[in-house]
Amino acid sequence: MEAILNALKDALGADAVRTGSEIESRYLGDWSAKSAHAPLAVVLPRNTQEVAAALRLCNALRQGVVPQGGLTGLAGGAVPTSNDICISLERLAGIEEIDRSAATMTVRAGTTLQAIQEAAEAADFEFQLDLGARGTCQIGGNLATNAGGIRVIQSGTARDQVLGLEVVLADGSVLSAMGKMIKNNTGYDLRHLFIGSEGTLGIITRAVLRLAPRPAARHTALCALSGYESAIALLQTLKARLGKELSAFELMWPDFFELGVAFSRSQQAPFSTAYPLYALIEHTSYANDRHDRLAQALARQLESGLLLDAVIAQSTSQARSLWEIREATAEFPVKLTPINFDISIPIGDIGNFVDTCRAQLQSRWPASRAFFFGHIGDSNLHVTVDGRSIPGVPPDALEPVVYDLVRTFQGSVSAEHGIGVHKRPFLGYTRSETELACMRSIKRALDPNGILNPGKLFS
Amino acid sequence: MEAILNALKDALGADAVRTGSEIESRYLGDWSAKSAHAPLAVVLPRNTQEVAAALRLCNALRQGVVPQGGLTGLAGGAVPTSNDICISLERLAGIEEIDRSAATMTVRAGTTLQAIQEAAEAADFEFQLDLGARGTCQIGGNLATNAGGIRVIQSGTARDQVLGLEVVLADGSVLSAMGKMIKNNTGYDLRHLFIGSEGTLGIITRAVLRLAPRPAARHTALCALSGYESAIALLQTLKARLGKELSAFELMWPDFFELGVAFSRSQQAPFSTAYPLYALIEHTSYANDRHDRLAQALARQLESGLLLDAVIAQSTSQARSLWEIREATAEFPVKLTPINFDISIPIGDIGNFVDTCRAQLQSRWPASRAFFFGHIGDSNLHVTVDGRSIPGVPPDALEPVVYDLVRTFQGSVSAEHGIGVHKRPFLGYTRSETELACMRSIKRALDPNGILNPGKLFS
Repeated sequence: MEAILNALKDALGADAVRTGSEIESRYLGDWSAKSAHAPLAVVLPRNTQEVAAALRLCNALRQGVVPQGGLTGLAGGAVPTSNDICISLERLAGIEEIDRSAATMTVRAGTTLQAIQEAAEAADFEFQLDLGARGTCQIGGNLATNAGGIRVIQSGTARDQVLGLEVVLADGSVLSAMGKMIKNNTGYDLRHLFIGSEGTLGIITRAVLRLAPRPAARHTALCALSGYESAIALLQTLKARLGKELSAFELMWPDFFELGVAFSRSQQAPFSTAYPLYALIEHTSYANDRHDRLAQALARQLESGLLLDAVIAQSTSQARSLWEIREATAEFPVKLTPINFDISIPIGDIGNFVDTCRAQLQSRWPASRAFFFGHIGDSNLHVTVDGRSIPGVPPDALEPVVYDLVRTFQGSVSAEHGIGVHKRPFLGYTRSETELACMRSIKRALDPNGILNPGKLFS
Repeated sequence: MEAILNALKDALGADAVRTGSEIESRYLGDWSAKSAHAPLAVVLPRNTQEVAAALRLCNALRQGVVPQGGLTGLAGGAVPTSNDICISLERLAGIEEIDRSAATMTVRAGTTLQAIQEAAEAADFEFQLDLGARGTCQIGGNLATNAGGIRVIQSGTARDQVLGLEVVLADGSVLSAMGKMIKNNTGYDLRHLFIGSEGTLGIITRAVLRLAPRPAARHTALCALSGYESAIALLQTLKARLGKELSAFELMWPDFFELGVAFSRSQQAPFSTAYPLYALIEHTSYANDRHDRLAQALARQLESGLLLDAVIAQSTSQARSLWEIREATAEFPVKLTPINFDISIPIGDIGNFVDTCRAQLQSRWPASRAFFFGHIGDSNLHVTVDGRSIPGVPPDALEPVVYDLVRTFQGSVSAEHGIGVHKRPFLGYTRSETELACMRSIKRALDPNGILNPGKLFS
């Protein structure tokens, strides 16, 4: 152990290798606030070559390595054990280039998402990945976990924002594929293999990101619906009318909605009566005209009776207060004891899933309070159970119930948060033995000594 | 050899295994019309289980297998040698399901692209992949090669149309990942690994495809420009005004344009004078309004002087005749002796690349006639040299010249056609040794006996 720490200090300099009490507590856990451990060391490389040097040494000595970004994950994917060495990418930060013609930005892995969004905006572009942790999360982590967020319906997940990638492999070799091309059919798409692999196949050090034009306007509306079938009909109508300009379709079931209103700053309910279902909708417009196509489409659906009611935001602040209801989830850790599920279900079956899941939870734990909401346009449902409603019941008791149902509905046990360690026991619920065997053989091929993020994804 | 043919006949039935004179000539080569060979046999499985049975037998006997779809490829990727057994997916055809709520279509690999497009349309959806070979090519081949085509700027390549995939692996095991979820962060994205792997990692048997809403209208225009910088400025302006509704941005250099007009049915030049550069532009609109945002945007650019001239199609037939100029490439094999290049170059550098490439070709072969055109919005340039202008010069002589320049410009030697066998010597021009080593180790991990499409991609 001394040997590897000394070798790392020799290679990267003593100030790049922290041990014992030099290790700040933030390196010990992530936002899931479970299982925090002090690692053997935290290594802080300044550039790709130093990441490569660190991996070369660790691989030679079969030392487990945990790559770390902003540590905002919820699956324990960047949390070390006491036998691991963490490699934090935080010093490898900064934007290297914005290519206006190619509409690309070249960034280092440790750059925060917000810094990237702001730099894009300053250059009159938009970087389309967005999520709540934007100020802290780093692009390397966003890519390693294929982050989703609030605009997937329009622009896809993190992987869809990437043209080029630089990755340091387990043996310290540097795989550089930093091309700016949109089309590149020359063998296996390694980019998509590393993105979402949660640091188990390599450490992402740099990337070429796609930039989108800045939209002219964003229009927001909140709709009241009679049930899930109406929600699907509305989603299809809006997709047909707005195409890829439909940028959010967030569904909230009444339990969640009431909590959202109660947790919002104004605490004002937007409707004077309660409804079976609520949809928060956003239209990102590129046309600089006064015609709001969202308002037009909703007016028609109010007439046809598909919508029971609708509030169309007339100002940015009104839009923000509608979003506040949906973003009440930020208050959950403070005001509830949240047990969270992040799952995917085929879009047509989500309504049925919610009813079934709620019934199963209540039949086992009659006092349980569950809140259902999600990015329905992306087939992504979030379920939060308030742990205070079922005192003494460990979160682990709920997981098999929910995930078993996800399996029955042919969904996915993780839509956007990843597997990490927390969801590892359930990976086999929605990926087959053949898929897992295929993943393991790729892992063995690229990391034969198993040094990269050991225990994550697979045991 | 007799042993394996008998075993295949036992497993699949005698009528599913063709040998010798029973093998029709269409199985021998692809649309590149190079190197046609009669294989040992052509096997015609009816379902996934039969594909699995065939691969199990071939793997046990280390028999090379070439998967075949519609055989419209241009890189020799589906062309057998005389030692191979072809597995044609043509009997595994048909659409299994359209899920309206999820906006998905479940298809078998042997279904033609056109059948998929038509079924989508009949259900009031659009399948957004489109390319010239639509009537013959099969979706399995489209996915195995990650086909591009004419609408990539709006909707991406083949891989972007896929949610779920079923693949038979080298050992005959069936990897089924036929989920309808848009978000699914549960381990490695195997889907993207198989897509574009040209049949070297597994045989795609079924897929869950994404469907898009049907657009309300398509608007087409042809613009005359003073040079490449104006083209980039126009592209950026239109992206900013139309967002993802900009569905084509095809640039044509004068040599190509004049040929296109000459090869078109009307042979009428749309402009009375010649210009340095031409852009064919398409706007796919989802709004059912009378305001044509493309026409508005172009009018503004005519006023500002960015455009020298523009023709905006006033009818479907006028739009078709503008497209005919661009699609004159269909006449190339008949009226020229085309030597074709399909390359990617970072968008900002394409103008410079064209000038440099043209100059280099002319300095070596002063009489050479080269035609430049491409999907510039996707960073994809096509170059066609008329072999008749350089009699006696073999096509092979031109390749190192062009691909060397592609390497210098940090582009890609194949944008959309793939590597197959024809581009194999040049794969290393734009993929690094580390990338190739990584690909080879994945290949060894998933196909240890090297039976899947031997000699394709790698030697």
